[in-house]
Amino acid sequence: MATQGQVITCKAAVAWEPNKPLVIEEVQVAPPEAGEVRVQILFAALCHTDAYTWSGKDPEGLFPCILGHEAAGIVESVGEGVTDVQPGDHVIPCYQAECKECKICKSGKTNLCGKVRLATGAGVMFSDRKCRFSINGKPLYHFMGTSTFSQYTVVHDVSVAKIDPKAPLEKVCLLGCGVSTGLGAVWNTAKVEPGSIVAVFGLGTVGLAVAEGAKAAGASRVIGIDIDSKKYDIAKNFGVTEFINPKDHEKPIQQIIVDMTDGGVDYSFECIGNVSIMRAALECCHKGWGTSVIVGVAASGQEISTRPFQLVTGRVWKGTAFGGFKSRSQVPWLVDKYMNKEIKVDEYITHNLTLVEINKAFDLLHGGDCLRVVLNMQV
Amino acid sequence: MATQGQVITCKAAVAWEPNKPLVIEEVQVAPPEAGEVRVQILFAALCHTDAYTWSGKDPEGLFPCILGHEAAGIVESVGEGVTDVQPGDHVIPCYQAECKECKICKSGKTNLCGKVRLATGAGVMFSDRKCRFSINGKPLYHFMGTSTFSQYTVVHDVSVAKIDPKAPLEKVCLLGCGVSTGLGAVWNTAKVEPGSIVAVFGLGTVGLAVAEGAKAAGASRVIGIDIDSKKYDIAKNFGVTEFINPKDHEKPIQQIIVDMTDGGVDYSFECIGNVSIMRAALECCHKGWGTSVIVGVAASGQEISTRPFQLVTGRVWKGTAFGGFKSRSQVPWLVDKYMNKEIKVDEYITHNLTLVEINKAFDLLHGGDCLRVVLNMQV
Repeated sequence: MATQGQVITCKAAVAWEPNKPLVIEEVQVAPPEAGEVRVQILFAALCHTDAYTWSGKDPEGLFPCILGHEAAGIVESVGEGVTDVQPGDHVIPCYQAECKECKICKSGKTNLCGKVRLATGAGVMFSDRKCRFSINGKPLYHFMGTSTFSQYTVVHDVSVAKIDPKAPLEKVCLLGCGVSTGLGAVWNTAKVEPGSIVAVFGLGTVGLAVAEGAKAAGASRVIGIDIDSKKYDIAKNFGVTEFINPKDHEKPIQQIIVDMTDGGVDYSFECIGNVSIMRAALECCHKGWGTSVIVGVAASGQEISTRPFQLVTGRVWKGTAFGGFKSRSQVPWLVDKYMNKEIKVDEYITHNLTLVEINKAFDLLHGGDCLRVVLNMQV
Repeated sequence: MATQGQVITCKAAVAWEPNKPLVIEEVQVAPPEAGEVRVQILFAALCHTDAYTWSGKDPEGLFPCILGHEAAGIVESVGEGVTDVQPGDHVIPCYQAECKECKICKSGKTNLCGKVRLATGAGVMFSDRKCRFSINGKPLYHFMGTSTFSQYTVVHDVSVAKIDPKAPLEKVCLLGCGVSTGLGAVWNTAKVEPGSIVAVFGLGTVGLAVAEGAKAAGASRVIGIDIDSKKYDIAKNFGVTEFINPKDHEKPIQQIIVDMTDGGVDYSFECIGNVSIMRAALECCHKGWGTSVIVGVAASGQEISTRPFQLVTGRVWKGTAFGGFKSRSQVPWLVDKYMNKEIKVDEYITHNLTLVEINKAFDLLHGGDCLRVVLNMQV
């Protein structure tokens, strides 16, 4: 391409400082260095983790930066040594890398490759600990190794999944985070079996994907819990069979659930990021085998707690990141499942806007009627 | 037997009130009712759970009572409908029942049968919610459904395991609690695989049994942690390969362990009952797969806590009761393993005393050189 090896100037939403509106700026995107890939982002969705860092509550948040981590695009150029993707490939950037070579990747037990984690956590690239984004020479930090609220971004080659070029990027961009996380929490982390009773706390995109995954796994009951009763109507379409609004009850929610399930659920999922709810999710599990999975991301410094008796009597407390999916290996498989109509994606998209409307999109995300807003990044 | 159907008067150690010396008394032991078994206790060991309830710190402790839950004896008589054991059978009373009929037993997922739990928790028998022990008509509460610090006790038929009559009761009495709990935590709850790195917090009987179980499971390293460095010499005989005394270090113990294991252990076991150590045991686990098992019993009201990030990054927090062993089904199997010299038991017995010396035995238990004291109950 004509842009290869050149600095690209393009539009991006820049978070100059916490909790101030994002500003659409012309930014400079440097060419990819060795082991890096420059991607033209065509569609990007918003996730609550973007909003969390933007809010300033994330002590690891770095500003100014370019947020965004749930997107899809096309490879524009690749740096030295990159062989797994080439210009023109359709890709989904993956905030969870997969190098396939480190102790963690080779363990076969987890998806939490740490190869580039220190660099992405510091908002820079692995090779030289520098940023590829700048405005008039002033660097802008990367975010989660993805920074997809830019028309072009640079990611590590271990952080990009090559997908079926026939897949609609305006839909499958959602598989970069929320939908995959919910499905994987059920399939990979909890391994829900047919006939199980499942509780899902929080019926946003991730919670609904948990419900969808549980239904697909053959759960006999999927109990949805949310403080917004309007969510039940939508949730039914994703597999939720019963609904509880904790505000309708005086007893603790875990007690309500234990009472209605003859001792507790087989599996529970916390999809909110609230440490009190994480405790409730554990304690609504059946003694002897109930397993609770933390999916939501709690605010920094907060801690979970419970009586050890809860665990000694057989409950299991786990968590999941990106649903346990190995990103480069399995995101293409998820895209294929979508193409085969085996998983929903379209149904999570409630709004379509453009990059320049990103602040409006965040306002929508915080409203009750929104699941996912997809931004068209190129108009 | 001549005593069948009769009240038996025999010696027992009575805990009249918390934290006061036990008193050897002549107690009356009523005949077993339907579904009950009266057992002549020949040998009883002391466990820290006895000491905990005796101390008065257990809010569920009931006084006056007869403590004791790790013992072996011979069936003296059985109540109506009891078919699995008969007079003369050698047995180990089991504080964790196994009815083989309830939802929990049938689940196949756990050993936590709850059939008689409400009664045993209230210090009485299931059928009539009354005590079988008394002194001059004044009832004495049962403890853990076993009350083995008596020359005769009455237990539920679901709480007694029939064992090989050739097994030496003065040894295998230990399989009623501590040794089985440690082995089972490794084999049933954690399912340690060959090559694993294991950390054991607390090198008492249960911790040493964890080490023994880990060695048998093929662990490559078994790191023992104790604040008494003298424990290392003994612990080597049970499979501990490395030792850390947290007092020798300024850094938190979890950091020491993470540093010496390239990121953390595969499995950790808390065998103390200290909620701070439970946290350390979780946090010394490797991200992505490390599993921590709570084996120790914490004081009432205490809570465990950690950052949810610890779980979201792939650590698993579990617990175990009686090592996950199904008591009636598997205690006989453990006895057989001992008879085949596949597991140690003798090596945990550091002192042999008699029933009348029980207060001295508790003093020994709190000393550093004692693992298990076995009481000869009939002299």
